[in-house]
Amino acid sequence: MVKIGIVGGTGYTGVELLRLLAMHPDADVVQITSRAEAGRRVSDLYGNLRGHFDLAFSEPDPQQLAACDLVFFATPNGTAMQLVPGLLDAGTRVIDLAADFRLVDSAEWEHWYGMPHACPDLLAEAVYGLPETNRDAIRDARLVANPGCYPTAAALGLLPLVEHGLADTDTLVADCKSGVSGAGRGANVGMLMGEVGESFKAYAVPGHRHLPEIRQTLGRAAGRPVGLTFVPHLVPMVRGIHATLYARVPGDAGDLQALYAQRYAAEPFVDVLPPGSHPETRSVRGVNHCRIALHRPQDGDMVVVLSVIDNLTKGAAGQAVQNMNLMFGLDERSGLDQVALLP
Amino acid sequence: MVKIGIVGGTGYTGVELLRLLAMHPDADVVQITSRAEAGRRVSDLYGNLRGHFDLAFSEPDPQQLAACDLVFFATPNGTAMQLVPGLLDAGTRVIDLAADFRLVDSAEWEHWYGMPHACPDLLAEAVYGLPETNRDAIRDARLVANPGCYPTAAALGLLPLVEHGLADTDTLVADCKSGVSGAGRGANVGMLMGEVGESFKAYAVPGHRHLPEIRQTLGRAAGRPVGLTFVPHLVPMVRGIHATLYARVPGDAGDLQALYAQRYAAEPFVDVLPPGSHPETRSVRGVNHCRIALHRPQDGDMVVVLSVIDNLTKGAAGQAVQNMNLMFGLDERSGLDQVALLP
Amino acid sequence: MVKIGIVGGTGYTGVELLRLLAMHPDADVVQITSRAEAGRRVSDLYGNLRGHFDLAFSEPDPQQLAACDLVFFATPNGTAMQLVPGLLDAGTRVIDLAADFRLVDSAEWEHWYGMPHACPDLLAEAVYGLPETNRDAIRDARLVANPGCYPTAAALGLLPLVEHGLADTDTLVADCKSGVSGAGRGANVGMLMGEVGESFKAYAVPGHRHLPEIRQTLGRAAGRPVGLTFVPHLVPMVRGIHATLYARVPGDAGDLQALYAQRYAAEPFVDVLPPGSHPETRSVRGVNHCRIALHRPQDGDMVVVLSVIDNLTKGAAGQAVQNMNLMFGLDERSGLDQVALLP
Amino acid sequence: MVKIGIVGGTGYTGVELLRLLAMHPDADVVQITSRAEAGRRVSDLYGNLRGHFDLAFSEPDPQQLAACDLVFFATPNGTAMQLVPGLLDAGTRVIDLAADFRLVDSAEWEHWYGMPHACPDLLAEAVYGLPETNRDAIRDARLVANPGCYPTAAALGLLPLVEHGLADTDTLVADCKSGVSGAGRGANVGMLMGEVGESFKAYAVPGHRHLPEIRQTLGRAAGRPVGLTFVPHLVPMVRGIHATLYARVPGDAGDLQALYAQRYAAEPFVDVLPPGSHPETRSVRGVNHCRIALHRPQDGDMVVVLSVIDNLTKGAAGQAVQNMNLMFGLDERSGLDQVALLP
Repeated sequence: MVKIGIVGGTGYTGVELLRLLAMHPDADVVQITSRAEAGRRVSDLYGNLRGHFDLAFSEPDPQQLAACDLVFFATPNGTAMQLVPGLLDAGTRVIDLAADFRLVDSAEWEHWYGMPHACPDLLAEAVYGLPETNRDAIRDARLVANPGCYPTAAALGLLPLVEHGLADTDTLVADCKSGVSGAGRGANVGMLMGEVGESFKAYAVPGHRHLPEIRQTLGRAAGRPVGLTFVPHLVPMVRGIHATLYARVPGDAGDLQALYAQRYAAEPFVDVLPPGSHPETRSVRGVNHCRIALHRPQDGDMVVVLSVIDNLTKGAAGQAVQNMNLMFGLDERSGLDQVALLP
Repeated sequence: MVKIGIVGGTGYTGVELLRLLAMHPDADVVQITSRAEAGRRVSDLYGNLRGHFDLAFSEPDPQQLAACDLVFFATPNGTAMQLVPGLLDAGTRVIDLAADFRLVDSAEWEHWYGMPHACPDLLAEAVYGLPETNRDAIRDARLVANPGCYPTAAALGLLPLVEHGLADTDTLVADCKSGVSGAGRGANVGMLMGEVGESFKAYAVPGHRHLPEIRQTLGRAAGRPVGLTFVPHLVPMVRGIHATLYARVPGDAGDLQALYAQRYAAEPFVDVLPPGSHPETRSVRGVNHCRIALHRPQDGDMVVVLSVIDNLTKGAAGQAVQNMNLMFGLDERSGLDQVALLP
Repeated sequence: MVKIGIVGGTGYTGVELLRLLAMHPDADVVQITSRAEAGRRVSDLYGNLRGHFDLAFSEPDPQQLAACDLVFFATPNGTAMQLVPGLLDAGTRVIDLAADFRLVDSAEWEHWYGMPHACPDLLAEAVYGLPETNRDAIRDARLVANPGCYPTAAALGLLPLVEHGLADTDTLVADCKSGVSGAGRGANVGMLMGEVGESFKAYAVPGHRHLPEIRQTLGRAAGRPVGLTFVPHLVPMVRGIHATLYARVPGDAGDLQALYAQRYAAEPFVDVLPPGSHPETRSVRGVNHCRIALHRPQDGDMVVVLSVIDNLTKGAAGQAVQNMNLMFGLDERSGLDQVALLP
Repeated sequence: MVKIGIVGGTGYTGVELLRLLAMHPDADVVQITSRAEAGRRVSDLYGNLRGHFDLAFSEPDPQQLAACDLVFFATPNGTAMQLVPGLLDAGTRVIDLAADFRLVDSAEWEHWYGMPHACPDLLAEAVYGLPETNRDAIRDARLVANPGCYPTAAALGLLPLVEHGLADTDTLVADCKSGVSGAGRGANVGMLMGEVGESFKAYAVPGHRHLPEIRQTLGRAAGRPVGLTFVPHLVPMVRGIHATLYARVPGDAGDLQALYAQRYAAEPFVDVLPPGSHPETRSVRGVNHCRIALHRPQDGDMVVVLSVIDNLTKGAAGQAVQNMNLMFGLDERSGLDQVALLP
């Protein structure tokens, strides 16, 4: 059993993590912290956990956390970096579901997140937790930076093209659509159902924090910086991300369907659909899968990749559990073998 | 392993049954029939089943079905009654998720379902599959009539009051609200999202087929016929039933909260919430639980019971699996231990 | 032209009022106040008003307000009562869309709203703005208390039965369902789409502030206090209220359909549907109508009335404009002749 | 008064047309045909029209239609072309809301619509009813081809760039999202709320019929064929289209915001938003406006245009009324001056 602490368990990422860990055979959650909800039973806040967790939220206690094998941070950006150095020193391993350790370049991090980084020296050590690119490094990592939701969907959809140098990496487009749970559970007028129900809009077109993260992942795969236009949109539904990815692939690039199938053949959580498919976000609701379909409309230069994930699962807590499984030598699928809830 | 056949696996009840059986350690689904989809792989119709079922739909074949330990019918009303006698003769046990065997009175059945019953003699033998009232009979049953969705939510909410003779059973009201998946997956203009999205309405107020079923269950508990007004409504969401139940409980009826807690203390899938609670349908999304809260506004005569289930799980396929577990001597919770998907 | 001021125009009631007044031929909105948004153009906050209003929000200025013919208050409860006495003294007429003047009994008001009333003497003068019961008094009123959304739907549905003494007024039930805009536009975790999307629940079952208001209206019609159980629910949609009303009508009560048709024959905004109907909330989306259907299931004692309104229109701003029309001698339908948005 | 016939008034385009014409001061609807619903009152099918139309649906009668000044076709593709020649011969003018006359090239039409064209000679005469490009021709037209919903949103968003030769017209991308009402009101399993609620997907990526229409409009503006990748998506909401448009605009293209503002300054129904805006589909719900915002992320080569319309209004029936106004010398805004329903 892995002895687990969770810092900041009251948001949507936190409750999803608890849902998955409740069904995990080797997870022993011993502490869930929340300053705001300290003393309240976890199952009082989240009715779906009744009967699964007897724990109450507690004030964060560094010593208790340091006694865990693994600590997940499901906190706002800027919190984990305050506590991680101490935990690592104590020999506790960490998976941060926030963004504190996702960018290797501290200047770029500070530019996009608008604050100084508390431990920039750890950025180089932190392993970006996308198992499809970093599996071996994750196994040995002390500190895993769990990827963002959009970056997971976009990167998995574009990686095969970029890794093989087939796409024009100056003109990539990621037109992404997310359910509202991606915005978190903070009190925010803009996310009231009265504001976002029965409506659709783009947001953050001038620049979203996931842009540098996607660029970093694709740039590593390409071996050089990539040009990417990233436009996120808000869908009036709770869960799910759909990335529609546009890449110019000039000339005869061979059998792209076979390329994708081969690239992900051994991946337990990436499913390349048959030619002509249009994946629905509901086909991955509540599960850790990414489903991908490939199109080349009218046999032109533009390749269109459709990539869907559940933003809270493969886009957050599910991927974190997948990383935990790797870090602790468990079956990578352990606790993640549910079937998506459809309809 | 229980060797299982499913007749009519293309509707929402069917896909939910497949989802649950895919996660069940003792279920071996060997045949799924559909005339319309014969030859098509199950996972092509339902993307969430990719990687979980290799089966294709097949034409119904009575001999192959008779070779199963258990056959589930997830067919329209009127289909199961044609095939069940032959299966029972062959020693195969049956759970019918449709309504063919729910009413013990064949004349009443024929009145509400508008067709002659093909095997009225089996109505007396069939066991109504509500484990909270019929557990022992279900264990030994050859033929289980799986309850309707509204009847499950309404009956579980009212049973303790009715069993103890506390409620005025002439003036019961069940004001019930269901997500759209309850209407099934048939091509039906009235269930287009353009028709039912962003709107709310009652339907079938003059009389819904679940009315005699609820009356039968409550009447058995009361020991005499009950008067019930049942009004179903359609909620613009996919899954979930919320029953708001009104019962006049005159005089000092004692501690009703304690009564409910005690009545369901041993029930693995009925959860009586603390006083003052308002259960949400999402707290049972995708799981086999019923969550119940009890109110007596302004300490008056009227008791209000709130009862929520997932119409496809405790209201259909989940309850069917619970019944299967009972019939085959398995742990009643087997395959049903997921955590509800929230948010 | 009626010279109009609006106090507190940033909530959903405010924007609906602005939408309707923009289409009103005799309305001249000269001032819209909001402390929080002072200086911001109204059309910057609400994109649908671009091209219709050039005004900016301003700090409330009693003198400017007093120069208006009519001031609408679309403020939180407890605000209007601070300013109304001064406005009335200045000869300005007032319609309060909040609850400050809805209850005639100040002790009851203070009990339900949890604060002392600032001008209890005005409670007797204030006219309850339900034109279907108070049309003549509204015409002459200085101060109109615009009804709540649930009370409008429930009262219009039950009034004919109660006025004629046909219903057992001790056991009335109002099971009401509202879209989320009824909760307003405040930052409130509980109304995030991530919390209320794809889910359904009851709330405030122990007691909701609209309960005494409905009781007061029905009690006046009955000539004595009525017993009512009122349970509000939250529907995952933006607009609309559906009241399902249960009344025991013992014996031969005559032709209820004709009774309702006659009661509302002259009402421009109440539409009694043909027998057997099930009104949808979308049939009144954005318009000032109430649509009502009547059922007596299985010819029993229980009469079920279905009543739908748009909570922001007939349930708030539309009814306020209807009251304005009456107060200023305009055609009662003026500015309210749109067709509901369907689908 | 314009004497109007409507052929095929039972779909969503039909009811929207009726809604708008009910509020139009110069429209006299004398006939609404539907073979399937002949004899049924229009307001029985669509409750929002109660009190606005007394008409019943009738069998189509060519003579009665020919007695109208104007006939709208709100029929499936392939119907209008059977009746239009006769109507034009009789001197009746026609607006076809379907696709029969949208493409000038009959071979391309037959390729995309899969049937022979019944009157290819009329394709050259038919005027494409996008007032923002064809206003004068529309005024004099006997036959107007009302544009598709996606083509309206996409063309209005891209026209200024393309007309001025600023964009690379070989690599345009139109990533479009539509509410479900765009799919019409036919009985179709794929559009059940159980199928499309709480989920998001792309469709028709290999080729959608609106592709050649968008290409034709932009090609005319560019003076040469354009290369466009068009990907439509389905949003779990009822109304609204959001087009996210990507155009490479190399070098210094000047002040694009000013260019757009100037291009549409005189247009009554195109609203160019201030820099930095993100239009919501709800800001045009039920109205004939297109709202557009312009972005150039990180000052790169890629210009992103956001364009929203209501698919049933500016994308169908509203634009048809706008065309009617032009054809009959009425104020172009007549009957189209409502404020969008928000929230």
